[in-house]
Amino acid sequence: MAEPAKKGLEGIVVAESKTSLVNGQDGKLVYQGYSIETLAENALFEEVAFLLWNERLPNRAELENLRAAIAAEAALPDLIVAQLKAYPKQADPMAVLRTAVSALALVDADSEDNSMEANRRKAVRLTGQITTICAAWNRIRQGQEPVAPRKDLNLAQNFMYMLTGNEPDPVASAAINTYLVLLAEHGMNASTFASRVTVATGSDMHSGVVSGIGTLKGPAHGGANAEAMRMFLEIGEPANVPNWFKTNIKEGDRRIMGIGHRIYKALDPRAAILERHAEALAKSSGNEKWFQIAKQLAEAARADEYFIERRLYPNVDYYSAILLYTIDIDVDMFTPLFAMSRIAGWTAHIIEQFANNRLIRPDVNYTGPMGLQWVAIDQR
Amino acid sequence: MAEPAKKGLEGIVVAESKTSLVNGQDGKLVYQGYSIETLAENALFEEVAFLLWNERLPNRAELENLRAAIAAEAALPDLIVAQLKAYPKQADPMAVLRTAVSALALVDADSEDNSMEANRRKAVRLTGQITTICAAWNRIRQGQEPVAPRKDLNLAQNFMYMLTGNEPDPVASAAINTYLVLLAEHGMNASTFASRVTVATGSDMHSGVVSGIGTLKGPAHGGANAEAMRMFLEIGEPANVPNWFKTNIKEGDRRIMGIGHRIYKALDPRAAILERHAEALAKSSGNEKWFQIAKQLAEAARADEYFIERRLYPNVDYYSAILLYTIDIDVDMFTPLFAMSRIAGWTAHIIEQFANNRLIRPDVNYTGPMGLQWVAIDQR
Repeated sequence: MAEPAKKGLEGIVVAESKTSLVNGQDGKLVYQGYSIETLAENALFEEVAFLLWNERLPNRAELENLRAAIAAEAALPDLIVAQLKAYPKQADPMAVLRTAVSALALVDADSEDNSMEANRRKAVRLTGQITTICAAWNRIRQGQEPVAPRKDLNLAQNFMYMLTGNEPDPVASAAINTYLVLLAEHGMNASTFASRVTVATGSDMHSGVVSGIGTLKGPAHGGANAEAMRMFLEIGEPANVPNWFKTNIKEGDRRIMGIGHRIYKALDPRAAILERHAEALAKSSGNEKWFQIAKQLAEAARADEYFIERRLYPNVDYYSAILLYTIDIDVDMFTPLFAMSRIAGWTAHIIEQFANNRLIRPDVNYTGPMGLQWVAIDQR
Repeated sequence: MAEPAKKGLEGIVVAESKTSLVNGQDGKLVYQGYSIETLAENALFEEVAFLLWNERLPNRAELENLRAAIAAEAALPDLIVAQLKAYPKQADPMAVLRTAVSALALVDADSEDNSMEANRRKAVRLTGQITTICAAWNRIRQGQEPVAPRKDLNLAQNFMYMLTGNEPDPVASAAINTYLVLLAEHGMNASTFASRVTVATGSDMHSGVVSGIGTLKGPAHGGANAEAMRMFLEIGEPANVPNWFKTNIKEGDRRIMGIGHRIYKALDPRAAILERHAEALAKSSGNEKWFQIAKQLAEAARADEYFIERRLYPNVDYYSAILLYTIDIDVDMFTPLFAMSRIAGWTAHIIEQFANNRLIRPDVNYTGPMGLQWVAIDQR
């Protein structure tokens, strides 16, 4: 009882995992032995999902089988499409995704089966279904009919196809694929941890993923990419950066959304990759304004003593906001797209938790009163 | 990295809390200064909810206001009733509850407001709404119309009224009230912890409660009461207890569901109270069979060296199964009824987490490979 509370559980090791290594001191991220730089340069998102689920890269037939399986499973059950159409159109997209994924369990024959085989099937299925929910919700809320997935496309292409209803643009699809590869897995982040706490009671994969989505939703986690973009939009023009930084950050009490990270005390390696992709996309789109705002704001922070001392660098959310905005993704869909990627990591961790499970139940220091006597209600 | 993983976080203090003290060594449970025995003998469930949310007991006017507010908020929005009617009737009731509570956020004007005032309103509302979802789902899945809540009843009475459509039976309502008081709060249990991990990213109360429901669902947590009853039903007759114990427990590899607890190394004080209530209910109902099975099985365990050495005693789930079964609650509704009670504790902890927040993000030991080089797909 005398032990002080470790409120954030910082540095408390809660599990062993083969999924990924996050080296925050040196700014390194490794999935199953492969550096994030290698994966971002070479891998299809489905290839990364295979790697996380199987602890090795697929051969050509395995990759094609997984791509085809995800594309086939991406078709939503009628119940889910009907439910999405019934939701209020102004609802928060993460609340919609959380609800729709929870509802998927009601029509999934594997939902209460926690065997390894069933969990692998559900991981594939949920990866496809979440992609479709994201695209379908963005159409439904604008009064458009959802578009069914195509069996010949990869996940990034299918998302762009289902979002727009048009043949997927290769540049946008490639950008989405890079984004999905970079965000698929990240150690014991808060949403992954919530997924593991949930399934550690012997619950089920859908419950774990639903906890992950609800946890990712917060602005201190997956919600940060949308918050970063709202900040860039507020700044409005590159020329406004110095004054905005001075007023809001130096003299005000605001934080720069997308700068700073619990684990990284060096540059987040994903941010470096995303910066290059965001810059290339901005140049090819002919609109460099948002990239310039982000870049100049990052430079202002990089030159500032406060940020230097605390080792606060852009994180994955910072430049991913620019990347997604440049390919016309609605700002409040940024976090659902994070979930569309992280489903690979959540399900890998859920499978790992089931394989070697123990109830996750920490302790708490009680600081309330003791020994109170009951007082009859009319004497209170 | 060399630190061994604390897989279950056993003994790791993650927070300070004024909600409750669980003293597992001595078998004591205290909510906000009042022993569980005192509360079980005297308190209405609404009085306990007030205590957990306000750190003191209500006076008569405050209690009446809260009772009336919960009864009023228990009326479900049309969207939720329509969604419940659309779900497959054989769906797992905890998956239904998780989905319906997630959907409530879509039509709650406070859902994205994390202020203290909004969180207090949502706590009251969700407490009423979960009661109605439990009762309504049990009717809808049997092809009956749901019954709307009455404004003149307390929560336990309203539940029985909405479940049966009849004037609530006083004995059954009192038993439900006792059950709700006993299960309302229990320190940093797994579902409460999941709720706190979720909202610690700055997410929202509905997301936190949804994580709580998904976590409670597991058989190592809230699912245990239903599992205990299924075990009693399998035993079938008190005369079968010795042989069942010998075959399944002593010679087999099964566990007694509802015996043993991560924290209690003495008798769970809730089990002692529930045993008395279950016995009285069994006697007044004229069917003592299930109580006798439970009692004789507990006695077999109490006399057995394995159970004595490991200090394995009946926990809250063991006799609560008998209590709920005796008043005709369907076995697969036991865990939703646990949620109907624990919503008070979840929301109290969520409010506490928001009041003094820090991201909950532990660490992990990476045990996978390092330094792998990319191999072109046709070379794999």
